[in-house]
Amino acid sequence: MERWDTLELAFSGKTNGNPFTDYDIKGTFSCDEEVKTVEGFYDGDGTYKIRFMPSFEGKYSYRIFGSFSEKEYEGDFTVETPSENNHGTVRVKNKFHFAYDDGTPYYSIGTTCYVWHLKDGEMKKKTLSSLEKAGFNKIRFCVFPKHYCYNTDDPEYFPFEGTPMDAGLVTKENFFSFNPHSEGNNWDFERFNPEYFRNIEYCISELRRLGIEADIILFHPYDRWGFSVMDNETDIRYLKYVIARFSAYRNVWWSLANEYDYMPEKTVEHWDEIGNYIMANDPYGHLRSIHNGPNIYDHTKPWVTHCSIQRCDMYKTAECTDEYRQKYQKPVVLDEIVYEGNIKEGWGNIAADEMVRRFWEAVCRGGYPGHGETYMSDDDILWWSHGGILKGESHKRVQFLLDILKEIPCHGLRRNPVSDFTNWDCVCAVPENDEDALRTGYHLYYFGFMQPSYRDFNFGGDDEYSVEIIDTMDMTITYVGKFKGYFIIDLPAKKYIAIRIQKAI
Amino acid sequence: MERWDTLELAFSGKTNGNPFTDYDIKGTFSCDEEVKTVEGFYDGDGTYKIRFMPSFEGKYSYRIFGSFSEKEYEGDFTVETPSENNHGTVRVKNKFHFAYDDGTPYYSIGTTCYVWHLKDGEMKKKTLSSLEKAGFNKIRFCVFPKHYCYNTDDPEYFPFEGTPMDAGLVTKENFFSFNPHSEGNNWDFERFNPEYFRNIEYCISELRRLGIEADIILFHPYDRWGFSVMDNETDIRYLKYVIARFSAYRNVWWSLANEYDYMPEKTVEHWDEIGNYIMANDPYGHLRSIHNGPNIYDHTKPWVTHCSIQRCDMYKTAECTDEYRQKYQKPVVLDEIVYEGNIKEGWGNIAADEMVRRFWEAVCRGGYPGHGETYMSDDDILWWSHGGILKGESHKRVQFLLDILKEIPCHGLRRNPVSDFTNWDCVCAVPENDEDALRTGYHLYYFGFMQPSYRDFNFGGDDEYSVEIIDTMDMTITYVGKFKGYFIIDLPAKKYIAIRIQKAI
Repeated sequence: MERWDTLELAFSGKTNGNPFTDYDIKGTFSCDEEVKTVEGFYDGDGTYKIRFMPSFEGKYSYRIFGSFSEKEYEGDFTVETPSENNHGTVRVKNKFHFAYDDGTPYYSIGTTCYVWHLKDGEMKKKTLSSLEKAGFNKIRFCVFPKHYCYNTDDPEYFPFEGTPMDAGLVTKENFFSFNPHSEGNNWDFERFNPEYFRNIEYCISELRRLGIEADIILFHPYDRWGFSVMDNETDIRYLKYVIARFSAYRNVWWSLANEYDYMPEKTVEHWDEIGNYIMANDPYGHLRSIHNGPNIYDHTKPWVTHCSIQRCDMYKTAECTDEYRQKYQKPVVLDEIVYEGNIKEGWGNIAADEMVRRFWEAVCRGGYPGHGETYMSDDDILWWSHGGILKGESHKRVQFLLDILKEIPCHGLRRNPVSDFTNWDCVCAVPENDEDALRTGYHLYYFGFMQPSYRDFNFGGDDEYSVEIIDTMDMTITYVGKFKGYFIIDLPAKKYIAIRIQKAI
Repeated sequence: MERWDTLELAFSGKTNGNPFTDYDIKGTFSCDEEVKTVEGFYDGDGTYKIRFMPSFEGKYSYRIFGSFSEKEYEGDFTVETPSENNHGTVRVKNKFHFAYDDGTPYYSIGTTCYVWHLKDGEMKKKTLSSLEKAGFNKIRFCVFPKHYCYNTDDPEYFPFEGTPMDAGLVTKENFFSFNPHSEGNNWDFERFNPEYFRNIEYCISELRRLGIEADIILFHPYDRWGFSVMDNETDIRYLKYVIARFSAYRNVWWSLANEYDYMPEKTVEHWDEIGNYIMANDPYGHLRSIHNGPNIYDHTKPWVTHCSIQRCDMYKTAECTDEYRQKYQKPVVLDEIVYEGNIKEGWGNIAADEMVRRFWEAVCRGGYPGHGETYMSDDDILWWSHGGILKGESHKRVQFLLDILKEIPCHGLRRNPVSDFTNWDCVCAVPENDEDALRTGYHLYYFGFMQPSYRDFNFGGDDEYSVEIIDTMDMTITYVGKFKGYFIIDLPAKKYIAIRIQKAI
């Protein structure tokens, strides 16, 4: 196996009583650089599993033990150099940014398909293909099924043993009258349905194959089955199971909730309990955050690794990135800045160019935007919920923006702290760290809905600067030339133009 | 003469000494409903003038007196019913709105041509024609000439006797190094140049003929001649002269300053002194405000009749209209929300559609937007400074919006105070007063850059509502039908759409 891949070991074990709760299985994995003890899980049919993600190369040994069996198991294996597209787990780096374990910067532009994993195999393949083609490197999706507009069917299977309320009772007209405490749901919250989780693991591993982070939403309010109102003990049992199953996948992120503040039965104390539990029990320290409705969570909490933010204002979201950075002192991921689409709901009907504008605003202020798409469809297949085929225009501009981010001659941007003309009509991004800024002279000016026909610059000194004009919608980069001192650049006098200036080599 | 027109009486008087300061001329005008004493002014060549605007119809008598002459004069005249396009002076009405003296609502959509009055006669005619064609009903312009980019020439004449510094010294490169204290200016601030003011009066009266309000900027910082740094006594002498000359024109508004906060030598106390002086000495109580740079003036001051606001944020200006209304409790006129254009300066390069979006945002929140245009031109003739020909796209949408405002079945809109789905993706305007809102059922929804393909409404009750879809850019109004209770309206799923709903008659 290679470094940062998943080793899975399976063992037969006890089946009497409730194997999900009555027994445990643990594994200690050792190499020269690390010794890690991880929890396993019951996978049904008398099988217990342990998963492990090695953080180092070389020879590992392991010991498997626990009440699941009278026996213990030992063995060893060798971890090889990772292959080209395996960079490890994404972590916070350079305070406001992310990088993989191997140091490669990770510039996040994600999307959202809440329950794409619950669609059939063909649809899942379509979704994966769409993700790959657009270049998204993160996707947010829920563990639990979703009860919401454009999404009223029961899934094929459920996370717990038992039976759901009659889905036939749900219509477009009455679906808001169902609530998580609806009668007719009959679950054994102490017995998981391994098949349900195996499907999610298939999705996580397929995403990993494509280099896409799986931002897994652990709880959400769009529910008629009762999964959003389980008691605290059940929540923790569920987390323990999910951590045991998912955490050895290098591309996992933990999103505690979508719109946590629309779940009134969960207190902030309980969210913090959940966050702290994950922080203490996830052996790999995957990224952790929580997504808001109207009230942004207090992302200064120690368990929060980065901000996951939904817009709180009709006009400014991406534009608040620097404010959020200042306030929370962590990377800012804008996971919901309104979805491109045309549904009646106000969180799902911005125009494509406005979406792309928000991408650029976020990036030039040192944050990371998120995409979503909600175009009406006769078959009620909306990307944001189900995945499938992308129908919009903004996703076509994602790879282009990512390529520009990857070309930054340093790790991460921030808004230029030097107040200049940009305060009036554009945002100027410079390297996060002063020494990089000085060394590279890198400036990325973004003009959004402004349309100057020319701009003058005065960089002073004797250095030559190369200047390029970027059309962020048409996705062209036009080299203008090399300049020094005071110079004037003609611009196309249209919307959505950026200028990239950096020291000529 | 007709009501609200200007009566002008001319008298010979003393010429020894300085007639501008050594003598006064006053007139008392009386009819059954009013008795008003107004100040006159010296107009050069031994002529003193008195102007008066009658506020009532019927027979007036007058008496002219003062130190200008040993004689007094008396006479009478009859005031007729005003002609169709003469509605009197615009005043604050219904707290956040404006109406003419005769009660006709005035919905302000103005523009800015700072020194159009200093161009030649042909250009002035072009400007007037452009204003009329676009439908603007207000224009902001300065009394004093302007020293600023795209505007470095000396005017044909100056407001004071004397000579200016050598204009040949000004180049595009050095113009910022000139300041109001520049050497070479040689003015007698105690002697006005009547020709200069007569030209402005020609402009005011031409605007009046077209039904356009003249929002006269009394002071501004773009100056190399010293008119922005006169001492307080000179300022007041100038105000006295201007009030005597201009105030009998019904279409005059007083704007104390453009960007008052870029004139560091004038204190807030002095601005208040100026405002209070005008309030005390303008016999007709014309509207008074003051325009800001980065810091909005305290518009709660008693002398301020309405807010005149320049945007203070790159993204939100019109969107802050309801906030300004709440804060200042006065009509909100957004006199500068960035100009449509393509110059390098960030206050003059927004795209046309963004400008029109700001118009609609302002209107739907119960405020009044302002236009301006700054397209580059080989002859350096930019509308915002010189007038002339409009080159943009936003001005073409002004008359359409004004027509919609004139069709409101009440006086004035405000943002719907009932919080509903509109908080997420649109702004909903309703009549300012609850009784009008109830009576008419009028709702104007504006979606800006959102693009829903349908929307559902539930107006309850038995009333039928007529529904129209407005394309604010293409300027079409499409009647959809009459509906009651719960109903769904299909929309074109594009940007800049509004829906107008009101009780069917």
